[in-house]
Amino acid sequence: MTDSLPITERSRLRRSHPRGHFDRATINDILDAQPLCSVGYVMEGKPYVTPTLQWREGDHVYWHGSSASRALRAGCDAEVCLSVSILDGFVLARSGFHHSVNSRSVTLFGTAFRVEDAEEKLTRLTRFVDGLFAGRYAGLRPDRTQDLKATTVLGLKIAEGSAKIRTGGPNDEPEDYTLPIWAGVIPVRMQIGSPVPDPRNLDEVEMPGHVRDFRLGGQNEPSTRG
Amino acid sequence: MTDSLPITERSRLRRSHPRGHFDRATINDILDAQPLCSVGYVMEGKPYVTPTLQWREGDHVYWHGSSASRALRAGCDAEVCLSVSILDGFVLARSGFHHSVNSRSVTLFGTAFRVEDAEEKLTRLTRFVDGLFAGRYAGLRPDRTQDLKATTVLGLKIAEGSAKIRTGGPNDEPEDYTLPIWAGVIPVRMQIGSPVPDPRNLDEVEMPGHVRDFRLGGQNEPSTRG
Repeated sequence: MTDSLPITERSRLRRSHPRGHFDRATINDILDAQPLCSVGYVMEGKPYVTPTLQWREGDHVYWHGSSASRALRAGCDAEVCLSVSILDGFVLARSGFHHSVNSRSVTLFGTAFRVEDAEEKLTRLTRFVDGLFAGRYAGLRPDRTQDLKATTVLGLKIAEGSAKIRTGGPNDEPEDYTLPIWAGVIPVRMQIGSPVPDPRNLDEVEMPGHVRDFRLGGQNEPSTRG
Repeated sequence: MTDSLPITERSRLRRSHPRGHFDRATINDILDAQPLCSVGYVMEGKPYVTPTLQWREGDHVYWHGSSASRALRAGCDAEVCLSVSILDGFVLARSGFHHSVNSRSVTLFGTAFRVEDAEEKLTRLTRFVDGLFAGRYAGLRPDRTQDLKATTVLGLKIAEGSAKIRTGGPNDEPEDYTLPIWAGVIPVRMQIGSPVPDPRNLDEVEMPGHVRDFRLGGQNEPSTRG
């Protein structure tokens, strides 16, 4: 496993080259910071995009869903494009043309595979839950065989793709900086709210640490707690 | 313009039917609440997904980019799938299988068209800026002809697609409610941060109301201000 992905015809950035990144550390940080992703696939020549949650283990990314799902059946052993994008702010410039957004995104290409082995599937799903909520899975009612059968896990090797990052303020035309126009950035971020216990929780059940201290992503871009 | 979209073979929900919505009011609210979208398209039989910003005007949705962009050239006069998804919370259940997320999403299908007329293109881009920041465009340095030429605006009629919404707490198996497991929801939402003025703003320039009071979406799901 090399530290960077190869730059291919479909993964190279045609514009804004300085914003492109191919190193795994940058790609992994973005994948880990935002589980929500969009999986693109083709059915009968037409494009489909399905929002779902992804999780990363090493140099693979996984997603799951009902075995009856059209998206999962169409995405198996077929070319997919998996996209994660995080909006970090609105960039207001002195001309409409130079308005932009600060964002981090990852686009991955490849052929998705189905996790066929039942034990491996359970391991993957356990990691999915525990990746979001450390140590939670062991305390749950174990999943039933029929529920695991009804669940498909798809995987994609992180082998082709890129990250794109924009940060900072507006980049205006030199002569526009003399204009009396407010420019700057309106930051946005994902805020984690106070947990809402199910009214049917048993009285003696306390809120676990993986709920109380829930956060998304690694050390670089922690989500805020509201 | 009818109040609901037709339910077609590709837009009907195969599972979780109660979560599906075809009425324009629901679809519009979600589009208006989150400009970030994913546009899926097909090139040489393979799927591509590009994150970009969308804006809605009546029963059309628009997005834009560089005229040199591969995504915009491939998406013009071609089938696209436009997806907007908003993560509202993590739903923690008493078994792994019943974990879920609260979310709002819209998926639209159709053939994208390019806004060819130069005046109409300027009108659309003005609405894009003013839709996010009311009244901002008139105060900006006017866009140059070459910049407008270098910008492509694509549109899609909102005619086929659906919304999907999940809200509320976990739906566990009846017998699992006796288990001493914490269940509930961890809400997440987009937080608008304090605006960061460009250090090169002129001293006399004050922060306009469209920055100070910036928010996303309609009255139903306002973003929070941090």
